[in-house]
Amino acid sequence: MENPSFVLRAVKDVLIEDRPKPLLQDPYDVMVQVAQTGICGSDHWLILYHSWQRGRIGDYVLTGPMVLGHESSGIIVEVGSKVQHLKAGDRVAMEPGVPCRRCDYCRKGSYHLCGKMIFAATPPWDGTLAKYYVNAADFCYRVPDHMDLEEAAMVEPMSVAVAINKTADLRAHQTVLVLGCGPIGVLCQAVAKAHGAKTVIGVDVVESRLEVARSYGADHTFLPPRGDSADPITHAEKVAEMLKGEFGLEDGFDIVLECSGAEPCVGLGIFAAKKGATFVQAGMGKENITFPITTVCSRGLVIKGSIRYLPGCYPAAIDLIASGQIDVKRLVTHRFKFEQAEEAFKLVKAGRQDVFKVMIAGVQ
Amino acid sequence: MENPSFVLRAVKDVLIEDRPKPLLQDPYDVMVQVAQTGICGSDHWLILYHSWQRGRIGDYVLTGPMVLGHESSGIIVEVGSKVQHLKAGDRVAMEPGVPCRRCDYCRKGSYHLCGKMIFAATPPWDGTLAKYYVNAADFCYRVPDHMDLEEAAMVEPMSVAVAINKTADLRAHQTVLVLGCGPIGVLCQAVAKAHGAKTVIGVDVVESRLEVARSYGADHTFLPPRGDSADPITHAEKVAEMLKGEFGLEDGFDIVLECSGAEPCVGLGIFAAKKGATFVQAGMGKENITFPITTVCSRGLVIKGSIRYLPGCYPAAIDLIASGQIDVKRLVTHRFKFEQAEEAFKLVKAGRQDVFKVMIAGVQ
Amino acid sequence: MENPSFVLRAVKDVLIEDRPKPLLQDPYDVMVQVAQTGICGSDHWLILYHSWQRGRIGDYVLTGPMVLGHESSGIIVEVGSKVQHLKAGDRVAMEPGVPCRRCDYCRKGSYHLCGKMIFAATPPWDGTLAKYYVNAADFCYRVPDHMDLEEAAMVEPMSVAVAINKTADLRAHQTVLVLGCGPIGVLCQAVAKAHGAKTVIGVDVVESRLEVARSYGADHTFLPPRGDSADPITHAEKVAEMLKGEFGLEDGFDIVLECSGAEPCVGLGIFAAKKGATFVQAGMGKENITFPITTVCSRGLVIKGSIRYLPGCYPAAIDLIASGQIDVKRLVTHRFKFEQAEEAFKLVKAGRQDVFKVMIAGVQ
Amino acid sequence: MENPSFVLRAVKDVLIEDRPKPLLQDPYDVMVQVAQTGICGSDHWLILYHSWQRGRIGDYVLTGPMVLGHESSGIIVEVGSKVQHLKAGDRVAMEPGVPCRRCDYCRKGSYHLCGKMIFAATPPWDGTLAKYYVNAADFCYRVPDHMDLEEAAMVEPMSVAVAINKTADLRAHQTVLVLGCGPIGVLCQAVAKAHGAKTVIGVDVVESRLEVARSYGADHTFLPPRGDSADPITHAEKVAEMLKGEFGLEDGFDIVLECSGAEPCVGLGIFAAKKGATFVQAGMGKENITFPITTVCSRGLVIKGSIRYLPGCYPAAIDLIASGQIDVKRLVTHRFKFEQAEEAFKLVKAGRQDVFKVMIAGVQ
Repeated sequence: MENPSFVLRAVKDVLIEDRPKPLLQDPYDVMVQVAQTGICGSDHWLILYHSWQRGRIGDYVLTGPMVLGHESSGIIVEVGSKVQHLKAGDRVAMEPGVPCRRCDYCRKGSYHLCGKMIFAATPPWDGTLAKYYVNAADFCYRVPDHMDLEEAAMVEPMSVAVAINKTADLRAHQTVLVLGCGPIGVLCQAVAKAHGAKTVIGVDVVESRLEVARSYGADHTFLPPRGDSADPITHAEKVAEMLKGEFGLEDGFDIVLECSGAEPCVGLGIFAAKKGATFVQAGMGKENITFPITTVCSRGLVIKGSIRYLPGCYPAAIDLIASGQIDVKRLVTHRFKFEQAEEAFKLVKAGRQDVFKVMIAGVQ
Repeated sequence: MENPSFVLRAVKDVLIEDRPKPLLQDPYDVMVQVAQTGICGSDHWLILYHSWQRGRIGDYVLTGPMVLGHESSGIIVEVGSKVQHLKAGDRVAMEPGVPCRRCDYCRKGSYHLCGKMIFAATPPWDGTLAKYYVNAADFCYRVPDHMDLEEAAMVEPMSVAVAINKTADLRAHQTVLVLGCGPIGVLCQAVAKAHGAKTVIGVDVVESRLEVARSYGADHTFLPPRGDSADPITHAEKVAEMLKGEFGLEDGFDIVLECSGAEPCVGLGIFAAKKGATFVQAGMGKENITFPITTVCSRGLVIKGSIRYLPGCYPAAIDLIASGQIDVKRLVTHRFKFEQAEEAFKLVKAGRQDVFKVMIAGVQ
Repeated sequence: MENPSFVLRAVKDVLIEDRPKPLLQDPYDVMVQVAQTGICGSDHWLILYHSWQRGRIGDYVLTGPMVLGHESSGIIVEVGSKVQHLKAGDRVAMEPGVPCRRCDYCRKGSYHLCGKMIFAATPPWDGTLAKYYVNAADFCYRVPDHMDLEEAAMVEPMSVAVAINKTADLRAHQTVLVLGCGPIGVLCQAVAKAHGAKTVIGVDVVESRLEVARSYGADHTFLPPRGDSADPITHAEKVAEMLKGEFGLEDGFDIVLECSGAEPCVGLGIFAAKKGATFVQAGMGKENITFPITTVCSRGLVIKGSIRYLPGCYPAAIDLIASGQIDVKRLVTHRFKFEQAEEAFKLVKAGRQDVFKVMIAGVQ
Repeated sequence: MENPSFVLRAVKDVLIEDRPKPLLQDPYDVMVQVAQTGICGSDHWLILYHSWQRGRIGDYVLTGPMVLGHESSGIIVEVGSKVQHLKAGDRVAMEPGVPCRRCDYCRKGSYHLCGKMIFAATPPWDGTLAKYYVNAADFCYRVPDHMDLEEAAMVEPMSVAVAINKTADLRAHQTVLVLGCGPIGVLCQAVAKAHGAKTVIGVDVVESRLEVARSYGADHTFLPPRGDSADPITHAEKVAEMLKGEFGLEDGFDIVLECSGAEPCVGLGIFAAKKGATFVQAGMGKENITFPITTVCSRGLVIKGSIRYLPGCYPAAIDLIASGQIDVKRLVTHRFKFEQAEEAFKLVKAGRQDVFKVMIAGVQ
């Protein structure tokens, strides 16, 4: 096959099909032979899968077949005529969203908000789960020789975690609460620690994930008691007091990173935040939730949404991995060949507690 | 009487009683003879009045009689031994909250978050509706000769509006949406304009308030259509699109200031915000609301709570009034003598649309 | 002639020559028929002229003939295939520097620092003093119908002034000292005032310029006494005390904008700055000066260099002119036809005190 | 003796004299029995000593005898009636400057700029080299049991280094150049690294100091070639190019921390800074220097002065030591008894290359 590609055609309908090898569109483009692609529970595909009936994810509507995958590394096989910093054979991590470079967001340094961004595996744009993928050269980052291509694929979730920490404007010596200990939550904790956080607490309802968290950045972890469905907000407030008391932080946390998307966690995080603290919403769950707005007001909180990666996140993520500060390979719990891609997605979708990050190798 | 004071004793039970003249507690204190005191719909008294059954306002519990009032001006009648910048006879606007000066918040410049703040008319601290009030000298600001004492009392709501704009970090040439056109909303619009905002839109459900808004800072106003109780979030999104379309701001507003505390306005404001925009929650209403958290996330919004005044707000407010940039006297719709204080509160409580700011004169 | 162009060929050697009409290089380019071009004392040409013997201006070396001019407005005559927001006939102000859009500076929102910027009339890039000029569409800003093309050319110096104020991070209610009352200094004062500055003081050694300053944004002006060449730093400190005393600002100014480039003004500005104040160096003069570095340290000052325009400056400048807040036409003291371009440059070079901004009309 | 004190009486005239035990001035004061006091080359005493003929240090004039010392730890022996977080027996690091808490600087969180600060061993305020010292309770920070009192005294220089890094607003993954590898320079490098800096380079003219730097935070060090007195600025530019080339940082450093106070280092630092970089001047040397102001302008640099400690520096410094991230004891090269205080100062003044930090024990 010329360019084997793993395509989502409709609900529960995926297959590997041959597609024409793509062409460079621009003298600043490069062609990458994809080497490794990670998937996880927050993957667009799964969201698509679940939300098929609604026919859209947020502002995106799937109108035709689309190649999946966006967390990829690879090897440069062709460079455009104006590309200077890359050559064939270079091993790269790929940032999967290329902005328009011309709108106000792009010009002011907020390219993650660009409305014309071409983002892999976001309708109508094809993803990276193919033999070849064309990307803008400046969104391909060469990795050092001692980093392997699986680590290079892990630069994507690491960049998400860096972006969440950047959005929080985390400063050294702060106390940090991270809600959710999936791959993103655990990496957020490790990044916070690498950036000098004084105390990092990880929260999850699954004990085995807390173990992983402790082996990464968390100084301590917390398993919240089962909720009270009759009055979830009061319950959240009570659990927040319990949590703060347990760690001697009665005033609350300087920074709260919400990586679960679960409604009770949002409430818990708001009540656990110190006056004037910053709370970052990174996890995606229910569109609308019950929210203690008066507490935001009376405690002078700052709530920020985090989406994708900010400029500079990819280089920072590579630095964290390449310097040995954060070992990402331990998060990869399962590995598949390209031909087994559907099996890999099914494993992730099953939601088993021992599945952290699943990696799909490129076409050989 | 030595020091006539307007006291809240219990629910619906207020009276003027004589209290001993207070003493300076500290060599940096001053004694002020209160000249004018404003009240409005968000006054603590009214909140207390309504929430008496719950027995508390937020973290505050009323446990005994308390003097009301916190928006006051006056004349210095005595100064402590270490006070240098004030002398008897000086006319001042009084910032009614004095922080501890020693906690981390105070030391880092966030004294509005000080947990030990002594705030007038917040239990258990007495307010300013008395003949005499003792305040820290550095929280009394001399006003220029051409400002009268009614204007000096209006420095308080003006400072609230300045604090809301500061919290939003509003920059010149931004587009601003203000939800709610009561005294605070209208002053927010005027401050935004004085600080160089490009376009300011005021929103309210009462047409007469929109008129006032237009005569202050609003470039335009908007009367939202009646809500759809079945699906308020979808309705809010629809109204936001309508509002943005009407003013040619399809991308939304750079800054949203929520001064109404009304749940539908919060939703409207979130949906009307531009990607990356700042939304400030200043109005206080229901403690918990239905909130479009995914929109906050996917649009990279920043939500901030505003409470009280930040350092520098009182001088800025005086500058805005003294320079003639904002005419606060037009907002004073009703005036009462000290003896009529209860009548004044009743008028405000009635919630008539023609009542903006009510002023109570000091004891003669 | 196809495309008459005003060319600098060598020292004191300028002429109008015919050049081929340029071509669009990119589907996002537009062709502009130049309408008005301003020049002033800081113009690159003059700097080139004076520094010819050194053979370079900063990092730039003139190696061949170059078209002059960079402060231009014009009318769109052709648009590239992907341009959406402009069409033939649109009247635009042109931002004369187009960055690479791909380097770290561009991606992080600091395109003014891009090392690959194509800047009009900066070697080796031709300027705008020709019949036609090709520019990136997103660096051409449509002006409202009620703004004429002379005002549109004045958007360039206005943007410089906006950038200086932005670099200073000026906030409403601050006190501002502006050193130098040429076109940029005067516009800086007007911008500071429009952005809510409390007090703006203009300084110059020429009384007639102070008059212009007072008629723009300056609340007051100051004519410094003649310097003492024996000990300029001590003199600067003495003059600073005098200046602060005269305006009752013994603690100094919150913001100092240095727009003269004159060594004594730099010293004066440093000593006149409040502790913790921001001082922006915008004027270009001697490369190295005697500088009170210990004062920077002991007073905790922030010194920032300002160069060109930051993202958002052009729209802000248009807003300031279009809204009627700043009348730029009064700064245009002399007008020339395109054929008289050399005469215009000679007038500016003469440095007469009555010459503020000189405007050269486009080819008819 | 009641309160043995090490007093500077006049030039080269120091002695230990008995002074009355001080009294608490305020219910928020505590009395500390001083345990350890550090001194180093930048100590006020030495500056006083050298600048005696001028009769002042900056704005300070020595008018009478004064106790020396300001880098001290100790044990609480008495607490004022309103002190809650400390009790007799507590071991503390002392921040030696207590601000007025009432001026605009204090209220806005810039207490380091307070003009009424009482700073130990700064005329006319006595220092800490005595048996007893009275300090504000909130400027005494309890240290953990596993930190000894020598480490607690080292919190002072560590806080200076934290303040310099904070002033630079250093972010993780930045490249940092530190000029000067004395105690402050070396600690700055260690702090930068603990805060996540990617690459830290230390510069000094003494090879043995570079060794110390490498054993702390520096990834690499650089020994600049001997200067060219004929044209120091051109030499500085040449050395900067050499330095950048050696470390593959042709664009320059994100952050430059100047901790030497030496004129050639300032120039070197400016030329080694990346466009848009931040340069912090912390070292104090000549009052006025030759300075490449045009480079500041054309490269859009930010130059900031650092003085004393910002709010939050003491707790951060304790965190860095207590967590084991930075081993400060290795910097203490010489130890003296209280009775040997003069000998200790003489050793420091001699300026030997093997003397880093000298510690004087408290009165037994």
